[in-house]
Amino acid sequence: MSRRLVIAAAQLGPIARDEPRSDVVARMVGLMRTAAGRGAELVVFPELALTTFFPRWFMEDQTEIDRFFETEMPSSETLPLFNAAKDLGVAFSFGYAEKTVDETGKTRRFNTSILIGSDGEILAKYRKIHLPGHNEHEDWRPFQHLEKRYFEVGDMGFPVSEALKCRIGMCICNDRRWPETFRMLGLQKAELVLLGYNTPVHYPPAPDHDHLQDFHNHLCMQAGAYQNGTWVVGVAKAGCEEGCDLIGGTCIIAPTGEIVAKCATLGDEVIVAECDLDRCREIQDNIFNFAHHRQPDQYGLLTEKISS
Amino acid sequence: MSRRLVIAAAQLGPIARDEPRSDVVARMVGLMRTAAGRGAELVVFPELALTTFFPRWFMEDQTEIDRFFETEMPSSETLPLFNAAKDLGVAFSFGYAEKTVDETGKTRRFNTSILIGSDGEILAKYRKIHLPGHNEHEDWRPFQHLEKRYFEVGDMGFPVSEALKCRIGMCICNDRRWPETFRMLGLQKAELVLLGYNTPVHYPPAPDHDHLQDFHNHLCMQAGAYQNGTWVVGVAKAGCEEGCDLIGGTCIIAPTGEIVAKCATLGDEVIVAECDLDRCREIQDNIFNFAHHRQPDQYGLLTEKISS
Repeated sequence: MSRRLVIAAAQLGPIARDEPRSDVVARMVGLMRTAAGRGAELVVFPELALTTFFPRWFMEDQTEIDRFFETEMPSSETLPLFNAAKDLGVAFSFGYAEKTVDETGKTRRFNTSILIGSDGEILAKYRKIHLPGHNEHEDWRPFQHLEKRYFEVGDMGFPVSEALKCRIGMCICNDRRWPETFRMLGLQKAELVLLGYNTPVHYPPAPDHDHLQDFHNHLCMQAGAYQNGTWVVGVAKAGCEEGCDLIGGTCIIAPTGEIVAKCATLGDEVIVAECDLDRCREIQDNIFNFAHHRQPDQYGLLTEKISS
Repeated sequence: MSRRLVIAAAQLGPIARDEPRSDVVARMVGLMRTAAGRGAELVVFPELALTTFFPRWFMEDQTEIDRFFETEMPSSETLPLFNAAKDLGVAFSFGYAEKTVDETGKTRRFNTSILIGSDGEILAKYRKIHLPGHNEHEDWRPFQHLEKRYFEVGDMGFPVSEALKCRIGMCICNDRRWPETFRMLGLQKAELVLLGYNTPVHYPPAPDHDHLQDFHNHLCMQAGAYQNGTWVVGVAKAGCEEGCDLIGGTCIIAPTGEIVAKCATLGDEVIVAECDLDRCREIQDNIFNFAHHRQPDQYGLLTEKISS
């Protein structure tokens, strides 16, 4: 059985606040068709792919907030995506705001990604752990980043699943900045990490770093790929969305850390690469052979709580 | 009190197997004078700076091996370095093979770095934890990499010291590839990480990656700097040493991950940068505010032993 997987990264341009999900889903189906036409077996969409990036607004009315959340997957609005994938014979992944009721009857909200097989079955789910931003309205910001307000920290750990001929992990946006994320996946021998992001160009707490956003984005993903010997597919929601500029830079990264495909626009765009999953061994069996070279006895501080 | 430190990275070109320490020390003193002439307050030399990179040879005669080790610091051969530093009023750091007798009377050997103040006092010591390579002679290699044979894993953890107006950590060569190293230092609020390396261009277990050595070197150090908001000074022993090509790429990296100074040769060369230590706050107080954004509860696997 071939260990090569043709993967498409499907970058989305901006989504307006009042853009109906049906329009977004139609755009996504279009990108999926383009990807399938280029031989893709897996199509990766960004974080919170179905709506505008709503944590940029402070809202108190839970009904208004919940309009950005999904309560079932697929829903009537997202079903065309699942149907198109079946039709085209491709697997896909995307992020969305998940509202769910747990076994105790408590309503919970997560920033979630799922991986769906070409038969329409959900193969894997991940709930974002590293929520960036803040909890309360902060007047001084030109726009808000209220993920800590609208979402709980993910409760599923960093799962790695056997699917599509390989070991797949997911993470979401800010997760990719943390080497802990990639290492948690790497220690489970992930061969492919799928991740989407919505990253403003402007970072209000340190505006002098705005020109470094693309560099930091690629730096973290390339280091994560190399240091764990895994393919990484990083997919942006990009462009000027509701007056807020988001970086692009969607790319596919080899286990050597090399970018092998990269978007050249800030709009809807598909890139494709043939990913040889066996290349992970070149890294995982050698320079980053964890069993051989890691020194976990020396890392105690990594799992301790620290105060500021 | 100013929180700016002018730092020099003093790259060394090759050192022949039969080159006496006195010659190497004279080269280092020359570089130190150049650095001081450019205003440097701290001069950083590479790993195992006093001799050729001897782990490339398999040796069984302990007397022959021990010729590459130091049993006292300073010794008569290294004292000129300490004297020059006092004379010039600069602090400095360098790596050497350390042979010592512990409190139980056992002889121990480490790959060590020290930081010395401008008064000649040793301010900090680090013993390399991530030893690369192998234990036994491996015939198929064009040269050996026997660090696991000649050294023990460091027994001092990853210390961070208050010195030279800031918080300084050290690591050595292969340590820099491991995000755990930088994180251990970052969690102790390191503002400056000093590291030296001897990195062959040719990596026998994965020779197809040889052309990526410089990229991987900078990728790991830049990610380590950015993800922990610390200055990093990475210093090579470079050039063709006893038939083995070593990468250069000596550089000084800002807490944003940007390379602000970089060597352009593979020989003895000094680069200098003025490092504003307060810039660490731009990262450590914001995007990588650990107390705020890390999720150590979710990182259990990082400190567990895994099998291959």
